[in-house]
Amino acid sequence: MNIKIENIKKLNVSKPLKLDCGKTINNFPLAYETFGTLNSEKDNAILVFHALTGDQFVAGMNPITKKEGWWVTAVGPGKALDTDKYFVICANVIGGCMGSLGPRNINPETKEPYGLDFPVITIRDMVRAQESLLEHLGIKKLLCATGGSMGGMQLLQFCATFPDKTFSAIPIACSSSHSAQNIALNELARQAIMADPVWENGKYLKKNIQPKNGLAVARMVGHISYLSEKGMQEKFGRKLQEKADYEFSFNADFQVESYLRHQGNTFVERFDANSVLYITRAMDYFDLSKQFQGGLTEAFKNQKTKFLVISFSSDWLYTTRENKDIVIALNASGADVSFSEIITDKGHDSFLVDETEFLKTLKGFIDSMYEKLKNEKRI
Amino acid sequence: MNIKIENIKKLNVSKPLKLDCGKTINNFPLAYETFGTLNSEKDNAILVFHALTGDQFVAGMNPITKKEGWWVTAVGPGKALDTDKYFVICANVIGGCMGSLGPRNINPETKEPYGLDFPVITIRDMVRAQESLLEHLGIKKLLCATGGSMGGMQLLQFCATFPDKTFSAIPIACSSSHSAQNIALNELARQAIMADPVWENGKYLKKNIQPKNGLAVARMVGHISYLSEKGMQEKFGRKLQEKADYEFSFNADFQVESYLRHQGNTFVERFDANSVLYITRAMDYFDLSKQFQGGLTEAFKNQKTKFLVISFSSDWLYTTRENKDIVIALNASGADVSFSEIITDKGHDSFLVDETEFLKTLKGFIDSMYEKLKNEKRI
Repeated sequence: MNIKIENIKKLNVSKPLKLDCGKTINNFPLAYETFGTLNSEKDNAILVFHALTGDQFVAGMNPITKKEGWWVTAVGPGKALDTDKYFVICANVIGGCMGSLGPRNINPETKEPYGLDFPVITIRDMVRAQESLLEHLGIKKLLCATGGSMGGMQLLQFCATFPDKTFSAIPIACSSSHSAQNIALNELARQAIMADPVWENGKYLKKNIQPKNGLAVARMVGHISYLSEKGMQEKFGRKLQEKADYEFSFNADFQVESYLRHQGNTFVERFDANSVLYITRAMDYFDLSKQFQGGLTEAFKNQKTKFLVISFSSDWLYTTRENKDIVIALNASGADVSFSEIITDKGHDSFLVDETEFLKTLKGFIDSMYEKLKNEKRI
Repeated sequence: MNIKIENIKKLNVSKPLKLDCGKTINNFPLAYETFGTLNSEKDNAILVFHALTGDQFVAGMNPITKKEGWWVTAVGPGKALDTDKYFVICANVIGGCMGSLGPRNINPETKEPYGLDFPVITIRDMVRAQESLLEHLGIKKLLCATGGSMGGMQLLQFCATFPDKTFSAIPIACSSSHSAQNIALNELARQAIMADPVWENGKYLKKNIQPKNGLAVARMVGHISYLSEKGMQEKFGRKLQEKADYEFSFNADFQVESYLRHQGNTFVERFDANSVLYITRAMDYFDLSKQFQGGLTEAFKNQKTKFLVISFSSDWLYTTRENKDIVIALNASGADVSFSEIITDKGHDSFLVDETEFLKTLKGFIDSMYEKLKNEKRI
């Protein structure tokens, strides 16, 4: 991996951040990107939290990968997160590898990349780091905050930690605590990386190499879990990859094999293996109810934020049931919450693809929230 | 892996077997085990086909692993496959590593272990090899044949290839063709093995070592897919492994992590990595309808065999829908078929564990089939 991150926009966070593990970081970089224009009232800002392998480049061209941003379906002029109207912000999570402080940064104590000397971080640490960015941008209160998957987890944490920082919130396809199956899948990804001898106990960065084989396998785990069984069957079925019949070999005979190999191989070009370890660990440690004696209901106490929880019917990674548990807790704590289950075969990936009903729901809610906010200010 | 297989019961199959890939094998070992006694009419035999990582040791103690046989819940005196009444047979599949011809055997041409020089085999090849065993045992027609998962796939193939070799058949938690998701999961397991540098393009056997890391990761894939999301949540949830709180490390904090690591580590002691490659490939290639111009209905034409198809409600690897497709095809071809979906949270693993309703269903069907057979003979 040779990401040129010199030209990436970064905030230097000087305020010390005490991490959940007990260690403190300070003077650390937080890479971020903005889209659209912040209005003079500073009330049209939308904060997007990214998922495990996401980054701050939600729209436009990603300058590192030279590909489209990961949420171009939702962010842009006239889209759900309409950059003609709203000011969209996204920061790379700490622990990541797209410019924010992470395990591939240089440890000032050793003058070498952190590797496993990087502190184990949590979703709350990620969120607290991003509060500094809002401060820097002079935004007291967001119009909306949103995110899917780990982005949704950050959002729930954000609302619990800062109950008055956003007017509205849209957690998408997420959970308030990682399930055993999701921990298992993350552990599988971690074991695949750590099984690669090139990983060298996290010290591969010193040699400027990557445990590519292990990282590619880890990525395949993800891609299997992001699709639904039915969606995968419809997309690939038993179709062969540019051949008339079985080859009787271990080459990629089936299209689905070819797809997975491709996903694995391209991922290693843009992502850091240790970041996968740290970010998946943060996800597994996420259990919002654990932070509050009264559990999840207590976590959402005193919420003024208006919530829209969205789930996808074929998502088996963060099921509708888990998303409904969030709705139940929000309701129990007296919060303003609505819920939408989008019926689709596209699985967990639904929030990243052109899923019309989802995008319409997203747009409708955000626009109505902006109207509501303007009305409240008028009164 | 140091399996001592010298003392394992083996048949030397002298009849040449033309494989689906075009190659022919002959004079090859087929390891098998029998339980109970074959009666004088030779009409009380039940053939069990084993799953991916199974072997011939269905009951009693496995002499290699020194553990209980993999199907002790179902096979034994007074159990569903009652060894006081029935003669239970199980053979290690070709491609396997428990005594039957597989990639770790010596290639007579090179005098070295086959490794990837072993021919790619199919489910049909496995089944044809086992026909020789029935011939050897003098069994013209089985009372019953059964198997779960890949065992069920072998059974469907057996019935299609030899329509008059068994009086009854119980395919359990299987499919008539591997789905895209199942191919993907198998490919993940293969890639994990092949990513391990110790694998050395399949030639690790020459050095008498195993790609343990990759093989352990491959096994974890399996164990995740064998449980249901709900079952995993109930069994493990977010329980920590002998610690009061998070360790903020990459050790196994959660019980589910510890479980997966243990499963991975013990598997490498008993199984051969190349066998995983070959057997998963055979599963992926399995598509019964592809063998017949008229599809699946044609595959089951002229069946005299009485079928009972069993699925498990929480099995996401071989769903009830896939099992029902077999029932539909059997019905369409005029076969005698009944179907039972067992309601359980135990996932695909249900057929291996003490699942009362399943075991009662199994026992009831087999005993009634034996009665029926006896009655038919009387008339």
